[in-house]
Amino acid sequence: MTAQLIDGKAFAATLREKVADHVAHLKRTHGVTPGLAVVLVGDDPASQVYVRSKQTQTLVAGMHSYEYTLPSETSETDLLGLIRELNADPDVHGILVQLPLSDHIDEASVIESIDPAKDVDGFHPVNVGRLATGQTTLVPCTPMGCLMMLREYGGRLTGQHAVVIGRSNIVGKPMAQLLLRENCTVTVAHSKTVDLASLVNRADIVVATVGRPHFVQGEWLKTGATVIDVGINRIDQGDDTTRLVGDVDFDTAKDIACAITPVPGGVGPMTIACLLANTVTACCRQLTLPEPVGLTV
Amino acid sequence: MTAQLIDGKAFAATLREKVADHVAHLKRTHGVTPGLAVVLVGDDPASQVYVRSKQTQTLVAGMHSYEYTLPSETSETDLLGLIRELNADPDVHGILVQLPLSDHIDEASVIESIDPAKDVDGFHPVNVGRLATGQTTLVPCTPMGCLMMLREYGGRLTGQHAVVIGRSNIVGKPMAQLLLRENCTVTVAHSKTVDLASLVNRADIVVATVGRPHFVQGEWLKTGATVIDVGINRIDQGDDTTRLVGDVDFDTAKDIACAITPVPGGVGPMTIACLLANTVTACCRQLTLPEPVGLTV
Repeated sequence: MTAQLIDGKAFAATLREKVADHVAHLKRTHGVTPGLAVVLVGDDPASQVYVRSKQTQTLVAGMHSYEYTLPSETSETDLLGLIRELNADPDVHGILVQLPLSDHIDEASVIESIDPAKDVDGFHPVNVGRLATGQTTLVPCTPMGCLMMLREYGGRLTGQHAVVIGRSNIVGKPMAQLLLRENCTVTVAHSKTVDLASLVNRADIVVATVGRPHFVQGEWLKTGATVIDVGINRIDQGDDTTRLVGDVDFDTAKDIACAITPVPGGVGPMTIACLLANTVTACCRQLTLPEPVGLTV
Repeated sequence: MTAQLIDGKAFAATLREKVADHVAHLKRTHGVTPGLAVVLVGDDPASQVYVRSKQTQTLVAGMHSYEYTLPSETSETDLLGLIRELNADPDVHGILVQLPLSDHIDEASVIESIDPAKDVDGFHPVNVGRLATGQTTLVPCTPMGCLMMLREYGGRLTGQHAVVIGRSNIVGKPMAQLLLRENCTVTVAHSKTVDLASLVNRADIVVATVGRPHFVQGEWLKTGATVIDVGINRIDQGDDTTRLVGDVDFDTAKDIACAITPVPGGVGPMTIACLLANTVTACCRQLTLPEPVGLTV
């Protein structure tokens, strides 16, 4: 092991502390408590776990958490009605609708119905467009967490060649926009990319977000690359137990990379911490209070 | 010269004919004439030339052209007032505010004030965000024209490595989004990119949009690359005459590329043709008429 381990767990804890500090400050100085509404439709077990985790951490940070668990047969109209109420509620500063939604609900319409000022996931097209055009916006949580870690562990980012593997709206594409904003040369690779290994071999920064266990091989990497592994894949160990692994083959990568995030304990913990940070930022902007320091990228 | 010349002038003429055909069809079948409002603030000579050209071509295509030339001291409030009126006017299907605007007017506020459905430049953040997230939108005209030519002259785009040099909101960044949507591996390079020549040397497609005459050297190119030159630079010929040249050194590139756009006569003519196409598309969508064929990408 030559690579520095990027400890996302510790990093996220520090970020959550900053959030809690700012929440305390807002209460003390302005009598305001940021509030996050989380909407879950249906009973997908993974979504339930995420939502519970978000709620707990919101409360621990000293914020209000408003929870809406709707039956899976909830109509799109009813869901849009709830979002309209939350948009109008002055106690709610952030709104998150847990994805994915059932097939009978149009995800794009739901996302577009959220007030962009309360869109703490950063998925509303107007926020996506503001990010793409270099304006102030709410940045999607996972790439935001990745960028925070890269700024800390990746050295001077300007001029580095970053290869983002994966082009989802949630991670890959906003990650590319953020790295471009940091003056990286940015390549977006994906399932149709030809000769990915040689592309990765030229990258100073690799962000893997493909959802395939051990996909990126250590031998693909350039010596000294910074590796951010967004994948969270559960694999069978063959002895009736499972474990979580990333999109990067950590065991071979750790001897070649300069710094690398582990899975679990890398990118994962950062996502919810960034959600809390976005909620505080959204709250301050809505009330035209000074922007908190260190909670945005 | 081994490269095929991509004749943007002829390509644009064909596109304009398709536009005129569809306009005639809309008039005949639905009694509708698409209308484009062009707003020019101040008396910048280059902007005046562009605006006049847009107006003429709008009329030639059989559409209505509404022209608003405002004095350079026009306030932002007055400009926003005019845009509100145009947003509400059912005869106006497309609105274009000629950029750049004077320093006392906030460009982002003006762009955000245009009804996204009438934003035929595709610059409104909600349209930018829809493009980035793969939804139906109005696509910025210059990259739209480039993509139309690439689809015609660039072979099967899936899996090709495209290098976009330049990251403007108007060309570079939307071009990258479009190429990603075409399943290209996409790299965005810019002024901070290290070793641009070797990056370009791996590209199957090169889109140059940097605004520097003869910047991209023929020897940088991979043999057989498709080259789209977005630059329009006026250079002094040393004998009291000037001429237009692109961002690519055409004379050296033409022997290495497989296909290349000349300057002038390449990308340039496509931009206004795409503006006309967007106006027809916007008109049809506003009136929920069938989407015209061949006028979008």
